[in-house]
Amino acid sequence: MAKLDELLKQGSLAELQRTLQEMNPVDIANELGEMDTADMIRIFRLMNKDLSTEVFAYLDENDHKTIARQLTPEEAKRLVEDMYLDDAVDFLSELPADMVKTITDGAAPEIRHLINTFLKYPENSAGSLMTVEFVRLFETQTCKEAIAYVRSSGIEKETIYTCYVVDKATKLTGIVSLREILTSKDDTLIRDIMNTDFVYATTKEDQEQVAQDFKKYDLIAMPVLDLESRIVGIITVDDIMDVIEDEQTEDLERLAGMGHAEKGYLDSSAWELSRNRIIWLLVLMISANFTSMVVQRYEDLLSGMVMLTAFIPMLMGTSGNSGSQAATLMVRGLAIGEVSTSDWLRVVWKEFRVGFLCATILGIVNLARIIWAPDDWQVTVVVSITIFCTVIVAKIIGGSLPIIARLFHLDPALLSSPILTTMVDLLTLLIYFKVATYLMPFLGLDFNTGEPPATP
Amino acid sequence: MAKLDELLKQGSLAELQRTLQEMNPVDIANELGEMDTADMIRIFRLMNKDLSTEVFAYLDENDHKTIARQLTPEEAKRLVEDMYLDDAVDFLSELPADMVKTITDGAAPEIRHLINTFLKYPENSAGSLMTVEFVRLFETQTCKEAIAYVRSSGIEKETIYTCYVVDKATKLTGIVSLREILTSKDDTLIRDIMNTDFVYATTKEDQEQVAQDFKKYDLIAMPVLDLESRIVGIITVDDIMDVIEDEQTEDLERLAGMGHAEKGYLDSSAWELSRNRIIWLLVLMISANFTSMVVQRYEDLLSGMVMLTAFIPMLMGTSGNSGSQAATLMVRGLAIGEVSTSDWLRVVWKEFRVGFLCATILGIVNLARIIWAPDDWQVTVVVSITIFCTVIVAKIIGGSLPIIARLFHLDPALLSSPILTTMVDLLTLLIYFKVATYLMPFLGLDFNTGEPPATP
Repeated sequence: MAKLDELLKQGSLAELQRTLQEMNPVDIANELGEMDTADMIRIFRLMNKDLSTEVFAYLDENDHKTIARQLTPEEAKRLVEDMYLDDAVDFLSELPADMVKTITDGAAPEIRHLINTFLKYPENSAGSLMTVEFVRLFETQTCKEAIAYVRSSGIEKETIYTCYVVDKATKLTGIVSLREILTSKDDTLIRDIMNTDFVYATTKEDQEQVAQDFKKYDLIAMPVLDLESRIVGIITVDDIMDVIEDEQTEDLERLAGMGHAEKGYLDSSAWELSRNRIIWLLVLMISANFTSMVVQRYEDLLSGMVMLTAFIPMLMGTSGNSGSQAATLMVRGLAIGEVSTSDWLRVVWKEFRVGFLCATILGIVNLARIIWAPDDWQVTVVVSITIFCTVIVAKIIGGSLPIIARLFHLDPALLSSPILTTMVDLLTLLIYFKVATYLMPFLGLDFNTGEPPATP
Repeated sequence: MAKLDELLKQGSLAELQRTLQEMNPVDIANELGEMDTADMIRIFRLMNKDLSTEVFAYLDENDHKTIARQLTPEEAKRLVEDMYLDDAVDFLSELPADMVKTITDGAAPEIRHLINTFLKYPENSAGSLMTVEFVRLFETQTCKEAIAYVRSSGIEKETIYTCYVVDKATKLTGIVSLREILTSKDDTLIRDIMNTDFVYATTKEDQEQVAQDFKKYDLIAMPVLDLESRIVGIITVDDIMDVIEDEQTEDLERLAGMGHAEKGYLDSSAWELSRNRIIWLLVLMISANFTSMVVQRYEDLLSGMVMLTAFIPMLMGTSGNSGSQAATLMVRGLAIGEVSTSDWLRVVWKEFRVGFLCATILGIVNLARIIWAPDDWQVTVVVSITIFCTVIVAKIIGGSLPIIARLFHLDPALLSSPILTTMVDLLTLLIYFKVATYLMPFLGLDFNTGEPPATP
């Protein structure tokens, strides 16, 4: 740990350079991230060009800005030119506009043009993820020619393991893996081994859809086509792993009623974290006033029978949990493409049966209260019946809401959490008070006082 | 859609075979999955060996069993031998023991031995994910020799893009990417371009840790070593994507208080789904009895002032949401390795500040009730003070519980949800009733009736 820091303190620069050469760029980036600015820059300049470019790509946003401020325009320009285009674009999109201008003004015109095009793709689109470094082949090349081409040019390409076969208009006609090329005979034509039924993305496609296709087809790279079927870039699996992680984090955050954090937890200030959380807390707190209104409406019932109050938290908790179990499974199922909106009726029917099973068990277990609180048996019966009804209702609502959200092109995770909570809370209280009001006379309880009526 | 089904009905087998050759194996597997058994088997037998093996690997557990039952022992044996070892092991581990015996008894002895070894690796370990098909090189080979070797043997290897350099005892001494080999000169020695600082897993390592390393180092394959540093297999990125998805689903399910489902939602029966959910519902329902007991203890207070009851749901909801926001971020942070147990104090301090900010805003907004319910201003003040205290407490508990769980080597997601709910509910009620009891005299309310005291 912190090897570099130590070597820097000892002043043994030769040893430091040797160590840097042997280390994994990811580990170097991690150590740099914990140094102060001066040390970071010193080590950054000690690395050779290739290594420093690679390490730079693994640094986080704050470190990028720190280093960018210290570099000469000449150094910054070289750095951007050496980076893979997707990394360069990510880096530039973090910087303030004037810094971007200084850097891109210095870069070669074709790179400047590419960068400007890429910066325009919407965030979270396939276009924003792709890179332009890939191997282009032609149908009429032989495997021998293809191998020679890959060997001479491969070093500049982000991935050489999938090659893209284009016609003269750069329209993608097929893809072929390096493995197929290598294991075919020298004189085999690319046309004869290429795969014409390939999976691709379009520039504006949502990154979540792209990630699903990567998983479904076990890809390590995917071509990105423009509206005329021309290949404009490729997306590689390492970027997709980040997308998957990010989308999952976002779903989790939304299920817990939070905005999506751009930065990691420890890097975010208390103020930034609060900002992400306060909105839903406010919305939920204010909407909870409806539940308060319901309780107030039944004030007479409750003042006559405080025992009923004691079970409000338990009932709301039980139905809330039942609903969020179903909603969580649906949000997840929709996210990984396992459930689609056309499955709605199947889901409702399944949740009805699941709800029925869970509700029966919970209701019966709750009846056991009668054993140690026999005097309160009437309240226990009311509570058990309420549990039975609310659990089924909560399961159906929890299973339906995410699908309804998707039908209206809303984010299932975002919508489900607050609406589900409010609806289930309200319905639970209404069902509870209705059941109590209707059953009390039959259970020998007086509505007004909650006590058994005086014998006449 | 359902192209195959149609062609099968038309009886045009030649056309069907041509279509199969052109289709992506993943799509074929999807279509097969929706056919009845007889059709599935017919199409399965129409495919050539390589294709049927690949398609088979993409079918799900139920279809595997269906097909396995229809195959002759000879066919089953050939299928297992042709599959990549990791797929074969996955397939065999789904079958009943007697079927496994029939199949492996027929297989070649070395394959039988490998399969038996692999079946013994614990579920979710690196060993259970790996495959043995990879390219072995020696330090003293030249790039030219290496390329020739890859070209002649590559077809059998699951991935040829990373090659593994071993010594005579099959100890892994370095790894080298095919790209480096291809872009080096013919007579360069593998020794001179191989990377000796490589990332690896051990057979018993947890798959979640392996997945984290894949993401951290942007890998497409990782070697798996035994205790003597010998390479016994490799794990490829496509299997890791499934692990990431699975681990994430498990975390989500646990956060929502559910067991992990082995099968997809639509494939699970209502009974299986209920079984995964009922345990935590029961635990939470029973532990909610503590909250009922707290409410009962303050029966006098509540019967004197039913208005207080009206805010119980809102208070429990607000503090519950506050706590689960913090807990969700921690569970996620721990899962992706962004937060570690040593960060506990930083987390507590951060959650205290976040809690303070959110609590202040929520408390102040709640005070606005005074505007439209001026008569109840005392209760509103009590509720605002309670919100302020409970939100801070809930944030600190929510942030701490997952870390404490990890310290005791328990699953953060599993522990957090039920304990958090119960603790936060209890504390919220206790704080509420304490605040109400202490403040009432000062606010001019009589403890027993909740009404302002009669003027003397």
